[in-house]
Amino acid sequence: MIFTAKQIADFLGGEVVGDNNAEVQTISKIEEGKKGTLSFLANPKYENYLYTTQSTIVLVNKSLNIHKELKCTLIKVDNAYKSFASLLELYQQSKPQKVGVDKMSSIDESVELGENLYVGIYTVICKNSKIGNNTKIYPQVYIGENVEIGENTLIYPGVKIYEACKIGSNCIIHAGSVIGADGFGFAPQVNDEHKKVPQIGNVVLEDFVEIGANTTIDRATIGSTIIHKGAKLDNLIQIAHNVEVGERTFIAAQTGVSGSTKIGKDCLVGGQVGFSGHITIADEVKIGAQSGIQSGVKNIGEIIQGTPAISLREFQKSSILFKKLPELRKEIFQLKNEIENLKKNTK
Amino acid sequence: MIFTAKQIADFLGGEVVGDNNAEVQTISKIEEGKKGTLSFLANPKYENYLYTTQSTIVLVNKSLNIHKELKCTLIKVDNAYKSFASLLELYQQSKPQKVGVDKMSSIDESVELGENLYVGIYTVICKNSKIGNNTKIYPQVYIGENVEIGENTLIYPGVKIYEACKIGSNCIIHAGSVIGADGFGFAPQVNDEHKKVPQIGNVVLEDFVEIGANTTIDRATIGSTIIHKGAKLDNLIQIAHNVEVGERTFIAAQTGVSGSTKIGKDCLVGGQVGFSGHITIADEVKIGAQSGIQSGVKNIGEIIQGTPAISLREFQKSSILFKKLPELRKEIFQLKNEIENLKKNTK
Amino acid sequence: MIFTAKQIADFLGGEVVGDNNAEVQTISKIEEGKKGTLSFLANPKYENYLYTTQSTIVLVNKSLNIHKELKCTLIKVDNAYKSFASLLELYQQSKPQKVGVDKMSSIDESVELGENLYVGIYTVICKNSKIGNNTKIYPQVYIGENVEIGENTLIYPGVKIYEACKIGSNCIIHAGSVIGADGFGFAPQVNDEHKKVPQIGNVVLEDFVEIGANTTIDRATIGSTIIHKGAKLDNLIQIAHNVEVGERTFIAAQTGVSGSTKIGKDCLVGGQVGFSGHITIADEVKIGAQSGIQSGVKNIGEIIQGTPAISLREFQKSSILFKKLPELRKEIFQLKNEIENLKKNTK
Repeated sequence: MIFTAKQIADFLGGEVVGDNNAEVQTISKIEEGKKGTLSFLANPKYENYLYTTQSTIVLVNKSLNIHKELKCTLIKVDNAYKSFASLLELYQQSKPQKVGVDKMSSIDESVELGENLYVGIYTVICKNSKIGNNTKIYPQVYIGENVEIGENTLIYPGVKIYEACKIGSNCIIHAGSVIGADGFGFAPQVNDEHKKVPQIGNVVLEDFVEIGANTTIDRATIGSTIIHKGAKLDNLIQIAHNVEVGERTFIAAQTGVSGSTKIGKDCLVGGQVGFSGHITIADEVKIGAQSGIQSGVKNIGEIIQGTPAISLREFQKSSILFKKLPELRKEIFQLKNEIENLKKNTK
Repeated sequence: MIFTAKQIADFLGGEVVGDNNAEVQTISKIEEGKKGTLSFLANPKYENYLYTTQSTIVLVNKSLNIHKELKCTLIKVDNAYKSFASLLELYQQSKPQKVGVDKMSSIDESVELGENLYVGIYTVICKNSKIGNNTKIYPQVYIGENVEIGENTLIYPGVKIYEACKIGSNCIIHAGSVIGADGFGFAPQVNDEHKKVPQIGNVVLEDFVEIGANTTIDRATIGSTIIHKGAKLDNLIQIAHNVEVGERTFIAAQTGVSGSTKIGKDCLVGGQVGFSGHITIADEVKIGAQSGIQSGVKNIGEIIQGTPAISLREFQKSSILFKKLPELRKEIFQLKNEIENLKKNTK
Repeated sequence: MIFTAKQIADFLGGEVVGDNNAEVQTISKIEEGKKGTLSFLANPKYENYLYTTQSTIVLVNKSLNIHKELKCTLIKVDNAYKSFASLLELYQQSKPQKVGVDKMSSIDESVELGENLYVGIYTVICKNSKIGNNTKIYPQVYIGENVEIGENTLIYPGVKIYEACKIGSNCIIHAGSVIGADGFGFAPQVNDEHKKVPQIGNVVLEDFVEIGANTTIDRATIGSTIIHKGAKLDNLIQIAHNVEVGERTFIAAQTGVSGSTKIGKDCLVGGQVGFSGHITIADEVKIGAQSGIQSGVKNIGEIIQGTPAISLREFQKSSILFKKLPELRKEIFQLKNEIENLKKNTK
């Protein structure tokens, strides 16, 4: 598909500076631009790329000042990054969509299938499950018994969803994720052995949830492990049994949340963070990468880091001093000596 | 299935307080109870739930004192949590069991299959492997050549077991785990390239081992990587080549163990812990989450935390002081000044 | 296959000490040796095994001095470890190789298949992809549209490769890895919701790259996430969108690299390390396990550790003092008291 600068500016509500008829057919980074590609420049720091790029069209912020001659055509918009994201979306939607239920998938006859579905080859859907309209399930997915999946949801290859879990509408689950495996529950026995406690709860992903690749979300012992509406989880995250993640909370890769912990809404959690079990985190809390959260966080909007986590400011100050510990110790020794000298002198 | 309070009390060896004929058909958390559900209360802290719950029957400890009027029927037992776990197990066992070998699985004709098996659709079992009686293998599992699996073992969807590995009886392996991939072994070459060292050993899981979802256990270079009897590994754990994990040791999620390290028996290892290679950890050692274990631990039952790990007490004390480092530095400065003043005065 | 000491010595360019006709048919660790097995001893520390092993042949370094009588036959070589690795390789190559395209794989008719391929059962290869000669793709692999894979590459069961990614020649990708899932990109919206930014770039693995089990490498937003020639990534690693990993760099298990970060060549990165986004790491840098790399590293060959990372020497010194913080505080208190006393005395 080929678009002109004019067509794109009209779609974005922007203004063309240069050739209205300049044509592009794909998208690239500004530093890798070629004839026929569209790029964007959001950060004025990189303004110089504008004068050297081979891209045919560049999206820029209205506020940007131009200081040299340009070879490319500009489209000025309020927010170049957001406009570019809209174009990316348009570009992706223009691709042919997968539809149809593959004959070599295995779908139990009791399953309720919505309309306009895609179910890929070698995918298994077990007894009494329900799949909503327009949902796309890629090849090699496993969906256990009594699972419910909403509408417009996208499930990538090799995802495994254990029995009785509920997935909302407009969710995305990336390849290799495991939803609903047994939590880590064992009861100590008299004979020093540990006996597995059956986990009969489930996992609930509400609408607009996104789960990264190879992430694992354990089912509740009883009740539900819940990822609330609009929450986004990155790759390789561990969510234990009976955890709740609040609405619109973002969790970066490789973070782990222990059993029964509740994280508030609109939180931002960095990568490789660990949460102890049975604690509660307030809304809008921001947690630095690799932190260890050993107790609850009560204040809305707190910003914390470290293991155990303290306020970000304290963490930064103390980290600088951690590096200076040998110096501090030396100073203490010097003070000791000086005091010894003083003692002698005052005797 | 419907059970009366009397039937459940008889099964558990407990005593009914209330209506012997009260009927339940499912299980719930006490705070989410409804008519027809059974709940339990183990922690006296939550006693208040007892007076407000909608559950029909609640399991409680004999030792619990009742302070208000009850709507529900109680079953008094020695240990409510343990009894509840037994009921959960009963509940789960009462579900129909999967049996039969799916025609659309791919099983080499040389494979030795036990009796009363379940092998799901799109599962692959390669040459010369052996599967014991009553073992259940879900769909989309891959079992390489010369693999041996014991009896009553449960292998969830999408597990991959490389050639020549040995899985014991009564084991559970959760979805997406990879057993027996090549360890990370490379020999430096003259030409500055690194040459892969073939890994010809295997992985041995002894009986009663449980492996969480998306966990990876590498095969030994030569010999075996061994997870001993009754050890439990959570999700997303990395076990490198030639590691040994002792009997009944528990390892929480996202922990990593480097090559050739040996962990003792009855250890408890927190989440996101990292172990260096070629070290030995004594029995019954407890390791706090996110610790970095850089050298061996010799004393049985030691409790450690931190990176590098120190005793838990030391870690807690030093962590408090880490936060106070700016204060300590200020104090040192003050002392300096005071000494300067003293010097002047004594001159 | 049976080999004599003479045959092996000739192959390795080594010298037999003992019986030229001693026969072996397999390989073992020296401490687990049996009649008919070949072992090696590289570290003189373990010399004692040499006198007690049941192995028939042991490879040793030329430089090793023998102090007792031997039961086994020795083969002396320049470097026993390297020679042993060569033998392991020979041993592995002598096994029958998998070939042929399984009828029960699903390969779109537009796919270009090279010669001498192995494609396992239940594997899916989508439209317009290309697979080079001698490449082996195990069962249950998913290869999306427009993917290119080079020659002699090995892809283990259950690997998922999203559309448009490029895999070089002589690569190895272990089971369960996900190549090309969407990065974690969201643009904040006016209405407080977050809108997904489509990720239209891809992942490029250059030649001789090895990827461990259940590792995830996200596609670029635009452009490519690149793992350069000869880089080796262990298990359960997270590589975010637009990251570059330099040639021959080794990354140990469970490390995570945030978006747009560039790691130089010949680096060694320990396990469970976390990298912030948009930073650059020089060549030949060594990073200790569990470090948190919050800013770029400019000096070639730097050795760093900690969160935030400092030089290894500083980290080690400060870690020792971290443990001694309670002591240091006590000393500060004592100094305070002494100064108070001095003050009184000088008044």
